[in-house]
Amino acid sequence: MNAKKMIVAFQGEHGAYSEQAVRQHFGSESASLPCRSFLEIFLALQDGRATHGMLPVENSLAGTVIPAYDLLVDHDLYVQAEVIVRVEHCLMAAPGVMLQDIKRVKSHYQALGQCEQTLRRMALEAVNHYDTAGAARDLATNPEPHTAVIASELAAQTYGLDILIRNLEDLDFNYTRFFVLGSTPPERQDPSKTSIIFTTHHIPGALYEVLSELAKREINLTKIESRPRRNRPWHYLFYLDFSGHEDDPQIQEAVLGILKRTSFLKILGSYPAARPLGD
Amino acid sequence: MNAKKMIVAFQGEHGAYSEQAVRQHFGSESASLPCRSFLEIFLALQDGRATHGMLPVENSLAGTVIPAYDLLVDHDLYVQAEVIVRVEHCLMAAPGVMLQDIKRVKSHYQALGQCEQTLRRMALEAVNHYDTAGAARDLATNPEPHTAVIASELAAQTYGLDILIRNLEDLDFNYTRFFVLGSTPPERQDPSKTSIIFTTHHIPGALYEVLSELAKREINLTKIESRPRRNRPWHYLFYLDFSGHEDDPQIQEAVLGILKRTSFLKILGSYPAARPLGD
Repeated sequence: MNAKKMIVAFQGEHGAYSEQAVRQHFGSESASLPCRSFLEIFLALQDGRATHGMLPVENSLAGTVIPAYDLLVDHDLYVQAEVIVRVEHCLMAAPGVMLQDIKRVKSHYQALGQCEQTLRRMALEAVNHYDTAGAARDLATNPEPHTAVIASELAAQTYGLDILIRNLEDLDFNYTRFFVLGSTPPERQDPSKTSIIFTTHHIPGALYEVLSELAKREINLTKIESRPRRNRPWHYLFYLDFSGHEDDPQIQEAVLGILKRTSFLKILGSYPAARPLGD
Repeated sequence: MNAKKMIVAFQGEHGAYSEQAVRQHFGSESASLPCRSFLEIFLALQDGRATHGMLPVENSLAGTVIPAYDLLVDHDLYVQAEVIVRVEHCLMAAPGVMLQDIKRVKSHYQALGQCEQTLRRMALEAVNHYDTAGAARDLATNPEPHTAVIASELAAQTYGLDILIRNLEDLDFNYTRFFVLGSTPPERQDPSKTSIIFTTHHIPGALYEVLSELAKREINLTKIESRPRRNRPWHYLFYLDFSGHEDDPQIQEAVLGILKRTSFLKILGSYPAARPLGD
């Protein structure tokens, strides 16, 4: 990291899980820039308002974030790192409010869903809000004695709310994977991982042959996903992650082999692999 | 279909895109049962309140619906059919309200996101609501002269709102794929498709071998997706769809081959393949 002040664009309000990812990866050295949409993250990097972007690409409960991948296809930025954030939902309320006073809980519908059984057991009414951190900010602005919010620990700190319960979620295997975006490739730091996107005309022929390029070189696949291409029935787009760096000779050979079998190939980047959670 | 009245459980309020899927597949012969969650669809089938379920499993813009697949793993129901619904967002308002009066638009954040560019061009404020059809119902109950809602055509019909604009979405390749669930396997109607879920210990070894069981029999793959297994770092769960019926000898051979290479395999069902949209 150089001396230039880092400004990291993220989607959401201050206190969002995305901002937690910024803190986890960049520490307190960086500034964070809240954006209203994923697209705005890319625009902030393009026009120089931000040096980096923090883009969620996958959640263990909700799956791949398709709009994030669509933007990665359309823009030319490098994936500089992956960040895996454990999502720990906290129940929080205005200072002085006790747990037994709480009657209803506001949060984003996904967070409410992930705490559904616990909320039902506690007989709390779930009220939807468009954003977890936004619900925390609103409660801090207009404190209500019978209302709590589900959001990140960072949101509680940011808006001065008291945490009543931690780890409220029904299933504890809840993490989000982010890509750190930048306008240059990162310094190599092994073990590396490489992410690519490609399209094939036919399945399984082409996909099977693409995978054979990796399998015969014993390159480990860590993610594979297909989705139909827009306006092209029976054409598919694939998201693939595998171990290794694009500068490795065997990865280069595999990539050349894959190129022959695809109609479009984009290397999103090679970056240091994060340790998986729970390992 | 037998003479017994069909009752189809779906998630959402009346007028939801899921209910549109019920109408598209079952016609007007069936009754539909709104459910608060995906889990409630499964419970309604188990306790006999519903004869069928309509479960969204994939959206072309938002990706695979992971919670739906998690429930499919945990319950023993048959996939009886797939239904592909084209999501056409309509802008609707209380009767008599004109387009030039509209200042803000309420809907679910995903629908708002899919119409973002259009709303920006029209300088309309986007206000989040937890549900598209719920926003339509609320507007019908409390008509506001400057507010419109984005929801399905069925929602406009259901709640008596006027459609001001159709096809409001920025990208028109927006469809949702549903599984029709039932407690018995469906009658065979070719071309058939089969959906399975399995886990492997290692990638790419096992996955590549699994795909070879399909490739060497020229069985067409139409979906593949990996996701990490809960609490099991480096173990993966795969969702696979392919052409053919589980009663076909070559599919049976392939399934037996796959079984040898997986630690868990569940056949969700063989069912008539829907025609892809845009074909």
